[in-house]
Amino acid sequence: MSTALILLAAGQGSRMKSDLPKVLHQVAGAPLLVHAMKAGAVLDPDHTVVVAGHGAEAVSKAAQAHDETAQIAIQSEQKGTAHAVAQAAPLLNGYEGDAIVLYGDTPFIRPETLARMAEARKAHDVVVLGFEAADPGRYGRLKMSGDALQAIVEFKDADEDERAITFCNSGVICAAAPLLFDLISKVGNDNASGEYYLTDIVGLARSQGLSATAIACDEAETMGVNSRTDLARAEAAFQARARAAALDNGVTLTCPETVHFAHDTHVGRDTVIEQNVVFGPGVTIESGAHIRAFSHLEGCHVARGATVGPYARLRPGTELAENTRIGNFVETKNAIIDTGAKVNHLSYIGDAHLGEETNVGAGTITCNYDGVMKHQTEVGKRVFIGSSTMLVAPVKVGDEAMTASGSVITKDVAEGALAIARGPQVEKPGMARKLFEILKSNKAKRDKGVK
Amino acid sequence: MSTALILLAAGQGSRMKSDLPKVLHQVAGAPLLVHAMKAGAVLDPDHTVVVAGHGAEAVSKAAQAHDETAQIAIQSEQKGTAHAVAQAAPLLNGYEGDAIVLYGDTPFIRPETLARMAEARKAHDVVVLGFEAADPGRYGRLKMSGDALQAIVEFKDADEDERAITFCNSGVICAAAPLLFDLISKVGNDNASGEYYLTDIVGLARSQGLSATAIACDEAETMGVNSRTDLARAEAAFQARARAAALDNGVTLTCPETVHFAHDTHVGRDTVIEQNVVFGPGVTIESGAHIRAFSHLEGCHVARGATVGPYARLRPGTELAENTRIGNFVETKNAIIDTGAKVNHLSYIGDAHLGEETNVGAGTITCNYDGVMKHQTEVGKRVFIGSSTMLVAPVKVGDEAMTASGSVITKDVAEGALAIARGPQVEKPGMARKLFEILKSNKAKRDKGVK
Amino acid sequence: MSTALILLAAGQGSRMKSDLPKVLHQVAGAPLLVHAMKAGAVLDPDHTVVVAGHGAEAVSKAAQAHDETAQIAIQSEQKGTAHAVAQAAPLLNGYEGDAIVLYGDTPFIRPETLARMAEARKAHDVVVLGFEAADPGRYGRLKMSGDALQAIVEFKDADEDERAITFCNSGVICAAAPLLFDLISKVGNDNASGEYYLTDIVGLARSQGLSATAIACDEAETMGVNSRTDLARAEAAFQARARAAALDNGVTLTCPETVHFAHDTHVGRDTVIEQNVVFGPGVTIESGAHIRAFSHLEGCHVARGATVGPYARLRPGTELAENTRIGNFVETKNAIIDTGAKVNHLSYIGDAHLGEETNVGAGTITCNYDGVMKHQTEVGKRVFIGSSTMLVAPVKVGDEAMTASGSVITKDVAEGALAIARGPQVEKPGMARKLFEILKSNKAKRDKGVK
Repeated sequence: MSTALILLAAGQGSRMKSDLPKVLHQVAGAPLLVHAMKAGAVLDPDHTVVVAGHGAEAVSKAAQAHDETAQIAIQSEQKGTAHAVAQAAPLLNGYEGDAIVLYGDTPFIRPETLARMAEARKAHDVVVLGFEAADPGRYGRLKMSGDALQAIVEFKDADEDERAITFCNSGVICAAAPLLFDLISKVGNDNASGEYYLTDIVGLARSQGLSATAIACDEAETMGVNSRTDLARAEAAFQARARAAALDNGVTLTCPETVHFAHDTHVGRDTVIEQNVVFGPGVTIESGAHIRAFSHLEGCHVARGATVGPYARLRPGTELAENTRIGNFVETKNAIIDTGAKVNHLSYIGDAHLGEETNVGAGTITCNYDGVMKHQTEVGKRVFIGSSTMLVAPVKVGDEAMTASGSVITKDVAEGALAIARGPQVEKPGMARKLFEILKSNKAKRDKGVK
Repeated sequence: MSTALILLAAGQGSRMKSDLPKVLHQVAGAPLLVHAMKAGAVLDPDHTVVVAGHGAEAVSKAAQAHDETAQIAIQSEQKGTAHAVAQAAPLLNGYEGDAIVLYGDTPFIRPETLARMAEARKAHDVVVLGFEAADPGRYGRLKMSGDALQAIVEFKDADEDERAITFCNSGVICAAAPLLFDLISKVGNDNASGEYYLTDIVGLARSQGLSATAIACDEAETMGVNSRTDLARAEAAFQARARAAALDNGVTLTCPETVHFAHDTHVGRDTVIEQNVVFGPGVTIESGAHIRAFSHLEGCHVARGATVGPYARLRPGTELAENTRIGNFVETKNAIIDTGAKVNHLSYIGDAHLGEETNVGAGTITCNYDGVMKHQTEVGKRVFIGSSTMLVAPVKVGDEAMTASGSVITKDVAEGALAIARGPQVEKPGMARKLFEILKSNKAKRDKGVK
Repeated sequence: MSTALILLAAGQGSRMKSDLPKVLHQVAGAPLLVHAMKAGAVLDPDHTVVVAGHGAEAVSKAAQAHDETAQIAIQSEQKGTAHAVAQAAPLLNGYEGDAIVLYGDTPFIRPETLARMAEARKAHDVVVLGFEAADPGRYGRLKMSGDALQAIVEFKDADEDERAITFCNSGVICAAAPLLFDLISKVGNDNASGEYYLTDIVGLARSQGLSATAIACDEAETMGVNSRTDLARAEAAFQARARAAALDNGVTLTCPETVHFAHDTHVGRDTVIEQNVVFGPGVTIESGAHIRAFSHLEGCHVARGATVGPYARLRPGTELAENTRIGNFVETKNAIIDTGAKVNHLSYIGDAHLGEETNVGAGTITCNYDGVMKHQTEVGKRVFIGSSTMLVAPVKVGDEAMTASGSVITKDVAEGALAIARGPQVEKPGMARKLFEILKSNKAKRDKGVK
C-alpha cells in the first residue's frame, strides 16, 4: 500500500536544556529525526512530511540533507499532536494513500514493526502501535477486544480495571490519509491542557463505525528522548545492538563495549576491531581488515587486508585499497591510497593520491593549503618518500622516484628521480659544549635577576 | 557558627599496598584528603587542622598545596581516633568555636550534610553524623530517642535489640572545640585494642548531662577508602555523579561512561563531549564548545565555539579563545590562542601566543627549550605558518607574515614578510632507481653474510 | 606424577563465522589454545600433544610458537572427542605417565584445579573435572557416591532424579595414558550422532572395576568459546580478573574498566595506570612507573620511575630505563632509552639507542628505513637533539653533542660538536601580503570558472 510519512518534529525539548532542537540531537552520529526517517523508509513512502516548529530552519535542513525530497510543514504554535499532524494536511492534499505518524524523538521503531502496521491496515481503518509496558505508569492504555482496539484510555481517565492494562500506546498511528485528516479536523481541545490529541481519533473512528486495531512492538522501540540522560541511554541502546550485530556477523571486537559505531557503519566478516575505536558516519570496512586500538574513522572505505592504527584518523574521502597500512598518529583526508601503499607514522595525507606500493616516511606532510585554497598531491607507484618530506601542493612525484629525508618538494619530481631540498650538514666541533656553557651561564644570570 | 575542621589523615592504609599515604591516593585528579577538605570548606572554617602521621611530610605538602592556611598536627603513634584528635588541641588552644572531625579517607561527605550538622549544633552539644546502613554489619549503632542520641553502641557490645538498629555511626562528629578537647581528655583506652576512641565522647557528654543528636546522610557519603578496589569504586562513584550532573546541566556526552571528569571540571551548556575524553584538574569549558574523541585536557580554558581534537592534548596554561581549533595530534602548553586561530595537525605549541585568525600548518613546532631554559614564541594576527615550520624561541612573527613550509625560523619575521629558511630543490634524474638497485644489492650481500 | 597433556583443538567453530580456526581466536592477546596450554603447563608435562583438524597448519604453528616442543596430531575427520584423543595415541606410544585431556576452546581452567586433579589421581584410576552448574541445562550429570564417580549421565538419557543433579561434566579427564588409550579403543559410536564420546570411558572403567572420581572447579573455569559473543565474554572475564589482581597487588588503576591487559602483563606495585591504556603481549612494568592515558604498549620493559604517555606507543623491543620519559604522540620500536633520557613529543624512535640524560626534541625521527633495509641510530649521553631533527641511519651522535633544530643528520656527529644541516633564513619584506593577494585573486578567478 502506498504511504506518506508524517514525522512530528516541532517540540522544543526544554528538558534537553539546549539551543539545538531536540530532534537534532544525535545518536550514533545521526540526528534522532534521521533515525526516525530511516525507520520509515522501509515503507518506501510517496511523501515524507516533517512537521517542524522550534528551530524549524535547522530541522528542515537536517531532514533534507538526509532526504532531499522531504517536505516541511511548519507548526508555529505547539497545540498538541493532532494539531501538529494537521499542519501536514495541505502538503498531502488529494493524496489517497495511507499516512503514518512517527515521532522525530523516537528513533528506534524497527522497519519490521512498520511493515507489520502496514499489513494490519489491510484489515482495519486505523492501526495504532502499542507495547507491553514493564511499568505502565502514566501511559495511555490500549483497550482491546480480540484484535479490535476499543479505545485509548488516558491514564488520568482510567478506572482501576483499565489501569491494570499493561498494553500501552506508543503514539504511532496509521490510517488512510483522507480519513486521518478528516478525523483530526474533528478532534477537540476540551481538556486540561487545552491541546488537540492525536489519540482522540481512535474514539472518533470507532464512533463512526470504523475498525481500529493495535499491533505490538518491543517497549525498547518506543524509547523516546526527552533529556540528555535519555539521549545517552538511547546511544547506549543503539551501541549494544550494533555491537551484538557485528559479533553475530563474524566481526571480531576485542572489547565490544569500547567500540562505537555510527548509524551506517558496515564491517565485513573476520575484520578485527580492537579497543577504543570510534566510527563516525559513512564508513565501510571490507572483510579481513584490522582496525587497531584508538582509531577514529569517518566517511571512508577500507579494503580487505588493510591495517589501520593504532591512533589512526581516517577522515572523509579516504579510500584505502587492499593491503594498505595507515599507522600511528597519521591523519588522512580526501586521500586515495592504492594497493600496498604505507603511511606508517606521524603524517598528514590530505587531498592526495598515493600509488601502489609507495612508502611514505614518518613525519611526511602534504601541504595542501596555501592559506586560501586547497591543492592536490599526486604520488606515483613504488615511490619512496623520505621522512619529514613536505609535499607542497599542487605537486606530482613520478613512479619509482625518491625524496630525500627532510626535503621540501615544491616542484614536480620525474619518474625514477631523486629529489633533495635541504641544506648540507655542517659540523662545528666543540660548539655544543660551548653553547651549553653559555646557556647555563645565561640561566644563572637570569635566575639571579641580573640579566 | 564559626568552626574549625580537624581532618584525620594519619593512617598508613596498609591494605592499599602502597608507599603513598592512603589519603594521598587520588579520586578524580585530587587526593582523597583534598576531597574531604573541599567538603569541609562549605563551613568557611576559621582553622583547618590536618592530623598527619604516616607520610606526614607528603600529607602536609598536599594539604597546604590545596589550602596554604591548613595547619598540620603530627600523630607519631596511632593510638586511636580520640588520640588523633587530641593532637590538634594545641593548635586550637583558646579557640571557642566549633570543631568538626572529618576523615581524610572519606571523600564524599556532601557540603549540605555538614551544613545540616552545623544547624543541628544550635540545639545540641554534640552532633554525630549517621547513616541508614543497607547492611549494618559491624558498624557502631546510633541509639536514638526521638532526636536525642542516647549512645553509640559498638557492635561487639550490642545486645540483640541494639544490633537490629540500622542507623549507624559514620565517625564524623561536631562539638564546641573546648568541650570536644575536654571530653577527649577523659576518654580511656580500656578496650581490646588499647586505643582511644572518639566515639566514647558521646557517652561522656551524656553522663555530664549534655545533649547529643545525630543527623543522617546517604550511606554513599560515608564511603571510606581502604584498598585500591575501594579507590576504584570511589572513582566510579564520583564519575557517575559528575556525568549525571553534566547531562542535567545541558552538556551533551556522546557516551557518558567514557568521559572522565576531574574534581573541578566546569563545562558549559550545549558543549559536546565525544567518546574517551579525559579531564585533568583545572579545566573550564564554556558553552557551545566541542571536545572531540580521545582528547586530554588539563589546566586550560576553552571558550565558546572552540573545537578540540580528536587526539588533542591541552596542557596547563592553554587558553583557547572563541572559535579556535586545535586538531589531531596537537599538544599545547602555556599557549594563548586568540580568536579564530587554528592548529589543525601534528604540532607542538608551547610557551607561545598565536594572534587572531592565524593558521598554523601541520608539523609546526615551537622550539621552546634550548636544553637549559624555556623561551617564548610570539606570532601575530592573520599569520600563515607553513607546514613543518620550526619556530626557534625566543622569536616573533609579525602580523600577516608568512613562513615557507619546512623553514627553521631563528630570527624575528617582520609584519607582512615572507620568511624562508630551507635548501633549494635539486633533482637527480634516474638516481632513485640507481639507489634502489644499490640498496637491494647491499641487502642481498648482507643477507648472504658477505658484507 | 609425570603427565602428558592432550589438547583438543580440531573443531571448526562454525558459529564463530570465521576463516580462523576457533582455538586461534584471541583473549588478552593470546589464542584460546595458548591459554589452555599455559594452564596445563603447571603440571610440567613430559609431552604436549595438540590434536588439530580444521586449519591444522595454523593451529600447529601457533602451538609451536608458544611451546616449540608441542607435538601435533591430526584428526582429519571430526568423529567425536574419544576419536580426537585417539589421534594422540601414536605420539604417546609407550608413555607410562598420566594423560590429561584439555580443550583448546576452554581457556580458563586454573592451574590449581589441574594440580588438584593430579592429586586426586593418586587415589583413583580416572579423574573427571566437574562443576556445580547454576543452570545445569543440557550438561552431562556427574553421578557421585561419596567421592566415587558412579557414572556420567548424558542429559537426554537422564531420569528425573538424575536431571536434578547440578554437578556437571566439564569434559576434562585424567587417567594413566595406557589406560586412557585402552579405554578409548573400546568406546563405541552407537548413538544418535554416530560419534565416539570421551565421557564413555568412565562407564567402561567402572565396568572393569576401576575407580573414578570427580573434583569440582568454579563454573567460570569451564567457560567454553563457541561464538564471538562468547569470545567477548571470555575477554571481559579475563580482564575483570586481571584488573582485580592488579589492584590487589598494589597497582593504581585510575579507572580499572578502561585498562586492557594481555595474558602476560606484569605491573609492579605503586605503578599508576591511567584511563584507556592497552597492553599487548610481552610487557613488564616495574614499580613506581606512570603510564598515562591513551597509551599502547607491546613487548617492552618500563623501569621504575619512568613516565609514559599520554598517547605514547611503545612497540616491541622498547626498553625504558629508570626515570625516562616518553611523551605524547611518540612511537618507539627496538629502542633502548637509557636512564633519564626524554622523548617528549611527536617523535619516532626506531632501531635506536639513546644515552643517559639525552633530550630529544619534538618532531624528531630516526629515519631507520632506506626503502630496503633497516639501520641503527646511536645517540650518546647528554645529547641535545633539536626539534625536527632527522637522524638518517646508520648514524651516530657523540656524547654531549647537539643538533640544530630542523637538521637532517646524515653523517656522524662528534662528541661535543654542534651539527647543523639546514638553509639560512631569508626574509622577503611585504611578500606575504603580496602572495595572499595573488592567492585570493587566483581563488576568485577559479570560483568564477575563469581560470
